[in-house]
Amino acid sequence: MIDFTFENPTRIHFGKDSLSQLANEVRRYGRRILLVYGGGSIKRIGLYDQVMAILKAENAQVWEVAGVQPNPRLSLVYKGIELCREHNVQLVLAVGGGSAIDTAKAIVNGACYDGDAWDLFTGKGSNTEVLPLGTIVTIPAAGSEMSNSSVITREEDQCKCGRNTPLNFPKFSILNPEYSYSLPPYQTACGIVDIMAHMMERYFTQVENVELTDRMTEGALRTMINNAPIVFEKPEDYNARAEIMWTGCLAHNTLFQTGRVGDWASHKIEHELSALYDIAHGAGLAIVFPAWMKYVLPRGGAKKLAQFAIRLFDVPEDFGTLEEIAAEGIARLEAFYHSIGLKTTLRENGIDEKDLDRMAERAVRLAGGNLGFFLRLKEEDVKAIYQLAL
Amino acid sequence: MIDFTFENPTRIHFGKDSLSQLANEVRRYGRRILLVYGGGSIKRIGLYDQVMAILKAENAQVWEVAGVQPNPRLSLVYKGIELCREHNVQLVLAVGGGSAIDTAKAIVNGACYDGDAWDLFTGKGSNTEVLPLGTIVTIPAAGSEMSNSSVITREEDQCKCGRNTPLNFPKFSILNPEYSYSLPPYQTACGIVDIMAHMMERYFTQVENVELTDRMTEGALRTMINNAPIVFEKPEDYNARAEIMWTGCLAHNTLFQTGRVGDWASHKIEHELSALYDIAHGAGLAIVFPAWMKYVLPRGGAKKLAQFAIRLFDVPEDFGTLEEIAAEGIARLEAFYHSIGLKTTLRENGIDEKDLDRMAERAVRLAGGNLGFFLRLKEEDVKAIYQLAL
Repeated sequence: MIDFTFENPTRIHFGKDSLSQLANEVRRYGRRILLVYGGGSIKRIGLYDQVMAILKAENAQVWEVAGVQPNPRLSLVYKGIELCREHNVQLVLAVGGGSAIDTAKAIVNGACYDGDAWDLFTGKGSNTEVLPLGTIVTIPAAGSEMSNSSVITREEDQCKCGRNTPLNFPKFSILNPEYSYSLPPYQTACGIVDIMAHMMERYFTQVENVELTDRMTEGALRTMINNAPIVFEKPEDYNARAEIMWTGCLAHNTLFQTGRVGDWASHKIEHELSALYDIAHGAGLAIVFPAWMKYVLPRGGAKKLAQFAIRLFDVPEDFGTLEEIAAEGIARLEAFYHSIGLKTTLRENGIDEKDLDRMAERAVRLAGGNLGFFLRLKEEDVKAIYQLAL
Repeated sequence: MIDFTFENPTRIHFGKDSLSQLANEVRRYGRRILLVYGGGSIKRIGLYDQVMAILKAENAQVWEVAGVQPNPRLSLVYKGIELCREHNVQLVLAVGGGSAIDTAKAIVNGACYDGDAWDLFTGKGSNTEVLPLGTIVTIPAAGSEMSNSSVITREEDQCKCGRNTPLNFPKFSILNPEYSYSLPPYQTACGIVDIMAHMMERYFTQVENVELTDRMTEGALRTMINNAPIVFEKPEDYNARAEIMWTGCLAHNTLFQTGRVGDWASHKIEHELSALYDIAHGAGLAIVFPAWMKYVLPRGGAKKLAQFAIRLFDVPEDFGTLEEIAAEGIARLEAFYHSIGLKTTLRENGIDEKDLDRMAERAVRLAGGNLGFFLRLKEEDVKAIYQLAL
């Protein structure tokens, strides 16, 4: 176990009645509110009207930044900052998934920084204060509702930049599993893969003696594996949706990171796929993660992969050699992805070998020459992983 | 799963080098510091000198409340409050175990309350502000370093009163597993039982569909069972001490409570033992918990006890009936307690039946007529549990 600092001050209100906490939170932080959201879905499920009714009952004044899209853009952040300044906003409230929340995080920081908010992402500038941020979560996936991270894309050069800082922690987040009832199966599946990937990136570490974090992570992964089939069968199963939503929140709040170094190669290898092709992040991870596993297996990965196979997918300890157990675990992970309707190869997603060189070069370059910690990957390694994913 | 609110803002610095964070924390909160500690042990292991050297290098002014004892007393709290007021203390720093931390919690609250600090425990008064509190933990057991609770005893009538409030969360806690190397085996064992009991009290719930919290709790309990034998064999095994210390911190920070109702009958039944006899809390729990389990087993407890037996102690699923599996789990828990040097009956601890009526009456009366949630216990039930523990 290595030394660590862990903190997470976000107050979570979870459950069917959690929205009733919004009024108290507004009284705590202030009635001049900026609402940040995407568009259709929160209106379709009636959440927009519910939120506005509560804010109205509290005599709040509300301004809006609407139209947040996946890979949220800097221009909307600028718009939000302007509104905050113009109207002395006291609380920014994001309603939606990771994109709405990440946009709001950039706004609460940028509003307290005199220069260009993009400086905060490039490291050119810094702030010490933020406006209070609250979130109401509708999509379990990114875990941004309890994380210290925010990722924004600058449109002009498609530069996607992230920033991790304790300033990014929302003051409160409201999670009602019912809001996820109407998610389409494909989006539900992509969210499940993303949540599990947040844990797997941390689980695959070369740091030894991390039993507590390993076992908690295994418990959380197992919970995902057990509850995923239920929500495809019965989209309105409250308990299964609740298990997935609460797991999604803890998966990325850094608890499962404590005492070890995460890997994050698969995320970065996937980013190139999403950047070049129209493929959802979770769908891309379902392709990349098994290929990454196959590549690291004979290169020092067998022991941890076998633990993963035994504890997560019930591969018997006497199934075969360590390598055979590990390989069976990967096969069962792929079968799990298939079972929730996802494909696990590039070709099934209409992608062939033509861009592999380019993607491998860029992924490693953006990572500064080495990618991942479980196994340090060079360009040729990353290309081999893409090939395994074909 | 039931609705819940979860928050825990305490910043944890964990590891061999964690004390190096103290200087930063002092700069953040202020240089006028009240140190709260017990006595011998922190001086014996050299920690007192290390802390004082850091504070001196930061030009801090330090006042002291020393001599905190188990079941910490109100008189020391008053003394600390007086020092805080007289010297405009900016940061209270507790060094030690749960007693030092609970004393410091009462001080940081009382210093911001105009009336008698005891009012805060009886509910007669309330405060909205606290002085900043930091802790340096030497004994993994109570989990007070990341909890919202504080228990203080008023000497004149031996009235022991607790208070749970978010105001009690320390701003930061420093945990270095090396500080626990020199704990005597008996104290190590009592700490292990206490830590596990904090999780078991929450695990035994009648709330269904709490898979994530169940599995995380099982992972943490398993970690305790696996690492306990190591520290008795090798008291200076860093990794095993680290697993126990980090688990002890999470065990009581309410993460494992999320989505359900805890039981807490065993804690309350044990309190009467500790109040009447000179028995450590952990040692008392090792007697009470198995007896409580035996009592609830045929009264609706078999299913959860069998899950406990299978997942924690590897009792095979085909071992027998649900009841036989559950009973075997209890036997293995008792064997575990024995293996770390503790006794699991009252008579082995020199206690006979003469006070059982009196203890059962008082335990149920203090709980307001019903004790526990997994099974609601009346006086006759509690007496039967004491008898099972004979």
